[in-house]
Amino acid sequence: MKEKLTKLKERLQEIADLRAASAVLGWDQLVNMPEGAAENRGEQIATIENILHTKATSDEIGTLLDDLKDYGSQLDPDSDDARLIKVAKRAYDKQTKVPSEFVVKFARETSIGQSVWEKAKSTSDFSLFQPNLEKLVALRREYADFFKPWDHVFDPLLDDFEPGMKTAEVQKIFDVLRTEQVALIKAISEKEKIDRSFLFLNYPEKSQWEFGEEVITQFGYDWKHGRQDKSAHPFTTSFGVNDVRITTRVKENYLPSAMFGTFHECGHALYELGIAQNLNRSPLADGASMAVHESQSRMWENIIGRSKEFWTYYYPRLQEFFPSQLGNVSLDSFYRGVNAVEPSLIRVEADEATYNLHIMLRLELEIALMEGSLQVKDAPEAWNTKFEEYLGIVPDNDSVGVLQDVHWSFGGFGYFPTYALGNLVSAQLWEKMSEDINDINGKIASADFGPLLGWLRENIHIHGAKFEPQELVKKVTGSTITPEPFIKYLKQKFGAIYAL
Amino acid sequence: MKEKLTKLKERLQEIADLRAASAVLGWDQLVNMPEGAAENRGEQIATIENILHTKATSDEIGTLLDDLKDYGSQLDPDSDDARLIKVAKRAYDKQTKVPSEFVVKFARETSIGQSVWEKAKSTSDFSLFQPNLEKLVALRREYADFFKPWDHVFDPLLDDFEPGMKTAEVQKIFDVLRTEQVALIKAISEKEKIDRSFLFLNYPEKSQWEFGEEVITQFGYDWKHGRQDKSAHPFTTSFGVNDVRITTRVKENYLPSAMFGTFHECGHALYELGIAQNLNRSPLADGASMAVHESQSRMWENIIGRSKEFWTYYYPRLQEFFPSQLGNVSLDSFYRGVNAVEPSLIRVEADEATYNLHIMLRLELEIALMEGSLQVKDAPEAWNTKFEEYLGIVPDNDSVGVLQDVHWSFGGFGYFPTYALGNLVSAQLWEKMSEDINDINGKIASADFGPLLGWLRENIHIHGAKFEPQELVKKVTGSTITPEPFIKYLKQKFGAIYAL
Repeated sequence: MKEKLTKLKERLQEIADLRAASAVLGWDQLVNMPEGAAENRGEQIATIENILHTKATSDEIGTLLDDLKDYGSQLDPDSDDARLIKVAKRAYDKQTKVPSEFVVKFARETSIGQSVWEKAKSTSDFSLFQPNLEKLVALRREYADFFKPWDHVFDPLLDDFEPGMKTAEVQKIFDVLRTEQVALIKAISEKEKIDRSFLFLNYPEKSQWEFGEEVITQFGYDWKHGRQDKSAHPFTTSFGVNDVRITTRVKENYLPSAMFGTFHECGHALYELGIAQNLNRSPLADGASMAVHESQSRMWENIIGRSKEFWTYYYPRLQEFFPSQLGNVSLDSFYRGVNAVEPSLIRVEADEATYNLHIMLRLELEIALMEGSLQVKDAPEAWNTKFEEYLGIVPDNDSVGVLQDVHWSFGGFGYFPTYALGNLVSAQLWEKMSEDINDINGKIASADFGPLLGWLRENIHIHGAKFEPQELVKKVTGSTITPEPFIKYLKQKFGAIYAL
Repeated sequence: MKEKLTKLKERLQEIADLRAASAVLGWDQLVNMPEGAAENRGEQIATIENILHTKATSDEIGTLLDDLKDYGSQLDPDSDDARLIKVAKRAYDKQTKVPSEFVVKFARETSIGQSVWEKAKSTSDFSLFQPNLEKLVALRREYADFFKPWDHVFDPLLDDFEPGMKTAEVQKIFDVLRTEQVALIKAISEKEKIDRSFLFLNYPEKSQWEFGEEVITQFGYDWKHGRQDKSAHPFTTSFGVNDVRITTRVKENYLPSAMFGTFHECGHALYELGIAQNLNRSPLADGASMAVHESQSRMWENIIGRSKEFWTYYYPRLQEFFPSQLGNVSLDSFYRGVNAVEPSLIRVEADEATYNLHIMLRLELEIALMEGSLQVKDAPEAWNTKFEEYLGIVPDNDSVGVLQDVHWSFGGFGYFPTYALGNLVSAQLWEKMSEDINDINGKIASADFGPLLGWLRENIHIHGAKFEPQELVKKVTGSTITPEPFIKYLKQKFGAIYAL
């Protein structure tokens, strides 16, 4: 059996190497590639992905996993080997349940869907995209059916991003969250608006870049195993636990964009870089789930990066970079400015207090579309109605409404909730960290991030994808994902800022 | 048969895509990769190369090629399809003749060889590297034996770089060349030395970079299908005919390094970018041989880039970039400075008149080692003796002598002659271009490179690897590779510069 396990690991290493190769090609495409190479790059990535799919669903791996089933069940269930067998088996079963013809058909429809969505968004014409979205919803139902029986048609989709989590669990969490967040932003909307006009002055790119790199170096980002580049949209990519790169984009007339973007991506990268070396080149060298991943990025971006203590330390430094822009802005004004709450139309620009509401309305629409209780043609109206209900404003057009995000155009239903769940997990972890780490706020106020990163590494990062998200969160905090710590965090923070 | 041809093309496309992926990983390694990722990157590339080897030597391709043999022989022998079948068959036969165990053993020994060579070179201690070089020579003989019968043991090695070319042909060419070049540099050595001290002033990197990019843009390098980056050693890499990238290194205290390096790599890139689109993603999307490739880089670097006409146009522009360094240096002094002939120890720094002699001594040693007429232990002395004979100077130590180049440490016997052959081919092509293009020197003097690039595209680039090097050179110039045009070029150019 040892030999079979070794064989399995070799096969999984090969798959991990191919995934890394595909990721390098993808990174290069977004960061370096000359524009005339797009079509060939697409072919190169498709070739690697085809080989990956063939290898990942091979009979050889299937047989090895079957042969190792008993062996795995006799190991310590939390051991690397037992978890490797379990996670590999799960992935193998999921992949082999979906026929190749469906994979090809779905790839074709999502490719068409994305280009039609781009056009529809740019002209704010939902009717263009409607037939494609109808096809994609139908294909997603067909996909869900491969995994019958399920409790809810949305479960198999959610499971792709949050292994083991059920739709009902998310709905229960969001029901609590929605009421509280809607009430909070209503209370804030009755208060005086915070002036943040100074954030829109001209901030030269070079200084923005240098400040960002200075901060994330202090966070603990290891430049011997990473780098930062520019791209149209910020992202983090991993080529194994020893090479995790981030990108950002700089807006010279809006300071928060690159700054918090850099903190955010660094949070993702610290997670991947903290995975145990002995999990490298295996399916366990990954985050536990999208939500757990997002908990890391949001923690560094928001809980730490938008805290009073953080700016107590860093604001004088930022003023050195931008004396003419910020020399006359007080620490308190700056802190309030980067935390101003203002319901707005665009999700990616939303503040901490409104962000989850953007997510919830999307999830409710996704679920309704999958259930069939909402027709695709009625989605724009449903969007606008909910938007007004939750955020008190109505989109001017579908381009900033139902057509806003790319996700549905590639059939990515189930992706959105992970953003909000990540916020919740970040607050849960923070509550526990605050108990475990002596004077955590003092540590932030002296830019002493070592104990924080150490705690995250030891409790979250090192495990990689060994545990399912609910299992991991419970193991660390004593509870599965729950909204209360995040609600408490929001109320405390914005209660103070807005004197609620 | 059409179906089988389509099937073959699909298999070859997959191989081309994997090669491109491997090249992207290699480029990234040398240009971007954080240092801590080296080991994992090695594993990723090895995984892709293993898959490549398996696919390239698969029975499926072998059977398709056998089935297509008669079909191919009925096509126009110069058609893309006929040549594709021929070139693919050649590659398949070569690869399948070498047992996998040998490939693995050779890879291991060259990997060890390179690290030992590095140490031996840094300490100038040949005895360290001697046992490894002995092993590599023995392995190269073993390799040659897989291709028996041959006329000369060196033939199969040469054939890896110059398909179809024989050792005897190269020796015959070099015999003529050696006498002429030794006599030429002897004559030059009796003349007064040219002052080129101004080339060693401080030349800021940014201006060097901008000048280089300005020139190669004018050469016709297409930034929509390429880019230039920095790396420790300059190189060109192709990810298919739509993405061909170059790198350079900048020495702020030696102007020619980046400048001529950029012209040189651009020459390689123009070749790859000029290959017909319909050969893309096939084994024909490649240069005809290393020598033909080098003929392109050397032509742009030397015949064009070091010509009087080129600097007549560009020297005033260069002076604008470097007014304090070159403001008082005349065009004539500059032209003579960048063409100064001085026997020196280091091949990569050699001038046009001495360069080939560095190559010839290496080739003679390689052949003698392979024949067994020279023992590895005697190589340092043989090197030094020949060096004095050809160039009139003796290396101070083995680090700048027999240990100078990396090539032998990876078993790359047969590689060196392609550099000198490239020089010869560039002069042959230039002779023909000068007949075909009206007032070619006038075109250079007005930076009107379009007709030159057009001629090269039409006669050389477009064909990719359809023709073997001797076949291609003959097709274009009427003669196989011959030293006379290059000798004539050297005598004219340096006769004028040194008033011989």
